[in-house]
Amino acid sequence: MEQRVSLITLGVADLARAREFYAQLGWRGQEVQETVFIQAGGLGLVLWDEGKLADDAGASLPRERGGFRGVTLAHNVRSREEVDAILAAAQSAGATIRRPAAETFYGGYAGHFADPDGHSWEVAYNPGLPLAEDGSLTIPDLGGETR
Amino acid sequence: MEQRVSLITLGVADLARAREFYAQLGWRGQEVQETVFIQAGGLGLVLWDEGKLADDAGASLPRERGGFRGVTLAHNVRSREEVDAILAAAQSAGATIRRPAAETFYGGYAGHFADPDGHSWEVAYNPGLPLAEDGSLTIPDLGGETR
Repeated sequence: MEQRVSLITLGVADLARAREFYAQLGWRGQEVQETVFIQAGGLGLVLWDEGKLADDAGASLPRERGGFRGVTLAHNVRSREEVDAILAAAQSAGATIRRPAAETFYGGYAGHFADPDGHSWEVAYNPGLPLAEDGSLTIPDLGGETR
Repeated sequence: MEQRVSLITLGVADLARAREFYAQLGWRGQEVQETVFIQAGGLGLVLWDEGKLADDAGASLPRERGGFRGVTLAHNVRSREEVDAILAAAQSAGATIRRPAAETFYGGYAGHFADPDGHSWEVAYNPGLPLAEDGSLTIPDLGGETR
């Protein structure tokens, strides 16, 4: 199994609301058969009805939704100012700020928001995880145990 | 906000178990401060204690865990045979097969597994979403409404 992810599909309760939220953040996508496909670097972020997504995965939706799902997507940026700007834009677009931006234990600066369906995003400036020109992230040698 | 994801962090109940599962699938990572960083194409897949992840996100863990979380990660491959091989490897490594591989409505072939923490993976052969040599995925013009 190659080390890569092709798509991240977020289950949403209201596709139009979800699409509008990401559009307000500047994310352009294509809608086909009630599914929104958004290019996100070398993979696709997909928005799809949460019930259909559960069925497709051979699973049932949890009763408790809209809260934290045990998964966080991080959007890393190149400065503290960008963290502030993106969190403000997300809030304007209808996100819930779960954690305001603050200095982090790793010497960076980050805050968290939840999209309208509760999907968790961290917006982070992390000088220890530099971004390439195209925005891709290569994990450097962190000095930890490798296997 | 640029259209990209830097990290996907999966909250796990048992870091060693999660790390072993992904290692059995051939994913190499670095462990630093009880966090596993795995390079996955142009982003990082991170395994971290689910309670710490929730705290970090300014959220609480749902009471109901291990089931479907409303998020699916897809790993697209280049043939039906690879789908079968990866699902078999995942099952051997301790995954639950939520949906056995089968032909899909979009003319592809896919199956779903849940990792030991219930995180949902689709393994898919989708001729409509071709992969580049490096495994990255660029969403083609799907003929849908774009904005």
